[in-house]
Amino acid sequence: VNQREILLQKNKDLRPERADKVLERMNLHSKGALSKETLIGLFKLLDQIGPAGKPAKLPELLVSRKNKPENTVVTVAGKEIGGGQPQLVAGPCAVESAEQVDAAAGAVKARGLHFLRGGAFKPRTSPYDFQGLGEEGLRLLKQAGNRHGLAVISEIVDPRDLEMAAGYLDVIQIGARNMQNFELLKEAGRTKKPILLKRGLAATIDEFIHAAEYIMVHGNDQIILCERGIRTYEKATRNTLDITAVPLLKQETHLPVMVDVTHSTGRKDLLVPAAKAALAIGADGVMAEVHPNPKQALSDASQQMNFTEFEHFVNELEKSGLYKHNKVMV
Amino acid sequence: VNQREILLQKNKDLRPERADKVLERMNLHSKGALSKETLIGLFKLLDQIGPAGKPAKLPELLVSRKNKPENTVVTVAGKEIGGGQPQLVAGPCAVESAEQVDAAAGAVKARGLHFLRGGAFKPRTSPYDFQGLGEEGLRLLKQAGNRHGLAVISEIVDPRDLEMAAGYLDVIQIGARNMQNFELLKEAGRTKKPILLKRGLAATIDEFIHAAEYIMVHGNDQIILCERGIRTYEKATRNTLDITAVPLLKQETHLPVMVDVTHSTGRKDLLVPAAKAALAIGADGVMAEVHPNPKQALSDASQQMNFTEFEHFVNELEKSGLYKHNKVMV
Amino acid sequence: VNQREILLQKNKDLRPERADKVLERMNLHSKGALSKETLIGLFKLLDQIGPAGKPAKLPELLVSRKNKPENTVVTVAGKEIGGGQPQLVAGPCAVESAEQVDAAAGAVKARGLHFLRGGAFKPRTSPYDFQGLGEEGLRLLKQAGNRHGLAVISEIVDPRDLEMAAGYLDVIQIGARNMQNFELLKEAGRTKKPILLKRGLAATIDEFIHAAEYIMVHGNDQIILCERGIRTYEKATRNTLDITAVPLLKQETHLPVMVDVTHSTGRKDLLVPAAKAALAIGADGVMAEVHPNPKQALSDASQQMNFTEFEHFVNELEKSGLYKHNKVMV
Amino acid sequence: VNQREILLQKNKDLRPERADKVLERMNLHSKGALSKETLIGLFKLLDQIGPAGKPAKLPELLVSRKNKPENTVVTVAGKEIGGGQPQLVAGPCAVESAEQVDAAAGAVKARGLHFLRGGAFKPRTSPYDFQGLGEEGLRLLKQAGNRHGLAVISEIVDPRDLEMAAGYLDVIQIGARNMQNFELLKEAGRTKKPILLKRGLAATIDEFIHAAEYIMVHGNDQIILCERGIRTYEKATRNTLDITAVPLLKQETHLPVMVDVTHSTGRKDLLVPAAKAALAIGADGVMAEVHPNPKQALSDASQQMNFTEFEHFVNELEKSGLYKHNKVMV
Repeated sequence: VNQREILLQKNKDLRPERADKVLERMNLHSKGALSKETLIGLFKLLDQIGPAGKPAKLPELLVSRKNKPENTVVTVAGKEIGGGQPQLVAGPCAVESAEQVDAAAGAVKARGLHFLRGGAFKPRTSPYDFQGLGEEGLRLLKQAGNRHGLAVISEIVDPRDLEMAAGYLDVIQIGARNMQNFELLKEAGRTKKPILLKRGLAATIDEFIHAAEYIMVHGNDQIILCERGIRTYEKATRNTLDITAVPLLKQETHLPVMVDVTHSTGRKDLLVPAAKAALAIGADGVMAEVHPNPKQALSDASQQMNFTEFEHFVNELEKSGLYKHNKVMV
Repeated sequence: VNQREILLQKNKDLRPERADKVLERMNLHSKGALSKETLIGLFKLLDQIGPAGKPAKLPELLVSRKNKPENTVVTVAGKEIGGGQPQLVAGPCAVESAEQVDAAAGAVKARGLHFLRGGAFKPRTSPYDFQGLGEEGLRLLKQAGNRHGLAVISEIVDPRDLEMAAGYLDVIQIGARNMQNFELLKEAGRTKKPILLKRGLAATIDEFIHAAEYIMVHGNDQIILCERGIRTYEKATRNTLDITAVPLLKQETHLPVMVDVTHSTGRKDLLVPAAKAALAIGADGVMAEVHPNPKQALSDASQQMNFTEFEHFVNELEKSGLYKHNKVMV
Repeated sequence: VNQREILLQKNKDLRPERADKVLERMNLHSKGALSKETLIGLFKLLDQIGPAGKPAKLPELLVSRKNKPENTVVTVAGKEIGGGQPQLVAGPCAVESAEQVDAAAGAVKARGLHFLRGGAFKPRTSPYDFQGLGEEGLRLLKQAGNRHGLAVISEIVDPRDLEMAAGYLDVIQIGARNMQNFELLKEAGRTKKPILLKRGLAATIDEFIHAAEYIMVHGNDQIILCERGIRTYEKATRNTLDITAVPLLKQETHLPVMVDVTHSTGRKDLLVPAAKAALAIGADGVMAEVHPNPKQALSDASQQMNFTEFEHFVNELEKSGLYKHNKVMV
Repeated sequence: VNQREILLQKNKDLRPERADKVLERMNLHSKGALSKETLIGLFKLLDQIGPAGKPAKLPELLVSRKNKPENTVVTVAGKEIGGGQPQLVAGPCAVESAEQVDAAAGAVKARGLHFLRGGAFKPRTSPYDFQGLGEEGLRLLKQAGNRHGLAVISEIVDPRDLEMAAGYLDVIQIGARNMQNFELLKEAGRTKKPILLKRGLAATIDEFIHAAEYIMVHGNDQIILCERGIRTYEKATRNTLDITAVPLLKQETHLPVMVDVTHSTGRKDLLVPAAKAALAIGADGVMAEVHPNPKQALSDASQQMNFTEFEHFVNELEKSGLYKHNKVMV
């Protein structure tokens, strides 16, 4: 795809010289009865009509439902995301050791889930905080996934790592801080792996949709969107879960939409209610963090569930009728 | 209740002279090994312990669940809010005429609801926008409620109007713009009518809870809280529905909590999903606007449902299993 | 002024029936070449033109510079606000006693200021916090103002108190929490005293301007606007000082604009720089809090200056050349 | 620098086992008189004291003023940023052609500036918007800088481009969308070129400071911070200029701080007042966009100044006394 050509095409009829000339002529004809704002408004509308009276609208975005009315279903290791049956994704914030990730994978599998998450490259506010185990973390995650029959998801933060990561992961996550790291998005467009794209810390719906478009226009149409809370003045929760973003994104795009309840709330006491709301409003899946021993976790210690809490979490979602138990068949 | 006495009591042990003396002594003893911040932190903690080693904590807020563990159930005309069965509240943004509010009441009743809303005093950004019919609007609302057997709810904005309004209304609403109009809250505390208190445009959970405390400390414990979206950078929706505020408020207080889906989204295409999320997360009720002819409405024309849309709205909530149909028995 | 008539006048040509008919006709003529959005856009523009080809624009707001190009200068006890020479307003957060407010007034006068502020009705988040001395506070403030030759400013929060307050005050303040307390605004429009109107916690510029319009349309054109910081995600400061609101408000309206540096920053270490920025960007005045003994203050103890800090504050502003010393002539 | 070692060192005394044991013991001793929150608070304070009664505080951040009290002065091509004399940086949003950037450079030089900016890699919301000329843009920028004797600044968005870019640029900019692109920050730490780091769209002051720490801890101490407005609910301006961030950043760090008035306001009518506020509050420089023909610009057409407006901009700053004219000596 050559953006330059798209741009030139797009701007062919909108070039400023034309605008100036048309505005001048309209001004003459209206003899001052129309304000400048009205004239500019009229011009913009006329411009959409085009020279032959036919609408010269831009083509719709590739990710938009106007472009493709049917839902995109992302199939990962035989399991569907966006196929009607919501999926849970769980696992530790960070991969810390073979034992830790294996224990977490066991707990995740035992409750019938198909997807294991775990961070290997951790974007941390401070350079002195735990930065993750890197490629070794990906290896440990894949090993745990293989042993327990789980598809694995992890965040990649450097465009130079995408090829390497595709050797370990079933789904590549692009995190909130990198939602507008366009070089990373472009590389993600060039891989064959599904991409889980998280909404930026303070990204608008429109920016989020265009970030997905960067991936799709570069060749990858296997994209899962993930609402994870936005930054607002309210500090009772870590972020504010923008729950209506889910139906909005599903209206505007054909992509599956998940909700990360751990990062949107940052509070273990809100994971169950937030997940119920997400499922009731139509999310295709829910992400949450679980750790064998949260108090000793190297990151986000206070917001990861232990195994008992995770049991309770899945039980409550099943009891609500909003999430259906998956029979374990290893 | 005498706030002054509470204040003096509260501040008895915290008075600045004491703080200064204690800090000075602690500083001497620590020989500079402790930073000023550490010393202040220690002092604050010690202060909570009190002179006799016993916790000298403030009494809990009256609205807090720590003060009263059981749910408050507000009973209006024999119908419960907060009693386990979620209630729908619907009606036009503003009462415009006898015919209009009567038609709306008929539609609301026909779908089995018990509560009719309609604005008579409209707080509008511009003084040139429709300000509501005032007391005449309350009279028309009550008349429509009586004819159709519906309890009626309307917003009051002036402390001088509360007594008059109590003659017309079953529930008095205090709107978002007046959540910290403390004189209005105090008067609301002095009425015998239940109060529906909406969260302020950019109020924190903590400010919202304290606003309810103003009402309760002045004598009225029949309070319903209402989340109605908060102001954020995101403009795809009119406000951002802070859905996790519902479980938070229900944890922190014993009061029923409703969600106004019309004002939080400002979009008719999001009313059904937002209401489902609200019910799934535990809201005690949902408010929405319905008008016989929204296009001709004198306020908020674009966000009110017409009767067909309202039918669909209630049907979808019933189909979801999250809201139970109320048999109509006129 | 009869809002109803203005509304009807305004809506005469915009009534929905007309819109429907015009849209229908335009749709026929364009034979589907124009999208619905384009048609609506065209309609709105045509509507501005009016039937006779002449612009049928709404009259400009009374507060707008388009309505009155010259600056409004508010003269208080012979001193001008908005007259070119910036004014400082200072005093304690709350009036606590005759001694306290007299000491503060002395310090304020000694540095050549003309305006003393002090709260008597304090809008506090918690009902258990100090609520102010009420009318007695106004009396003490006036007494201190008289003794030291200072004009006095205080906040009123209840429409029932405005008449009483006018007997004590030179300028009546309407605080941030009451910026959209429209009943209070309307009463403020009926007094003869100048009004200092603070921007709401999360009010847009447009809402702020319309709040001022409420006052002016009800009869009072002596209005001073005051930027006091807005609520954002950033918590390093109490609020975020929206400094460009000052030139924006001065472009859009003809009213004087002040900046409250105490409430916008909430930090004593930022008062001097914030005040310099305010004066450099064109503010007509700066407000700040000073207290004889901030540590013992009954409200906002940490953000009020003591007398030494206040000395330094005024000295720094004078040294910057942005504020001119007023010779003391008692 | 080995983050892992720093982390382990940092966490030596804070390891969770110890916390559990100490909390348990404290609980026993207090016989339930202390709440759990109080105990945890006490523990955290005790932990800061360390075993020998000596403060075991973390070392201060490298960028902090506590670590280095003197101002960092960044010298670029013999001109100082942070040396007391504020600098202006100007140029087009994007480098579009040799003629365009040369014309802009001429105008910038003619008004006595030393720094030319111009984008070659443009992070754009939509993949269909102009993405910049890439390396060719850097070459044209350097050529224009050389011809007119100006140091050149441009944004780099891909860690793989930093080495290449160092061959063309005097200062490398890291933009708002990449403030937490930690891989890019780490690479920036490894170059020898000064880095201009812009604040993220919704970054806190604390996150901004830690982003700078990423650069410094990886080896580069030539860092200029740049406030460029934050994302808030207010849409009258493109962003909200957080003007008090300037003194805050200068208090907390030893780095120079600039203000980008173009991106913080997004309005040409606010550039002069915003720049005056920035200079008055102590900014070490101001950035603004100027283009030979803004109406034909390929990006941000509405917010770039033309040459006449730029003349006026510099003149007004000089007249204010806040910015001193630099004599042109080619």
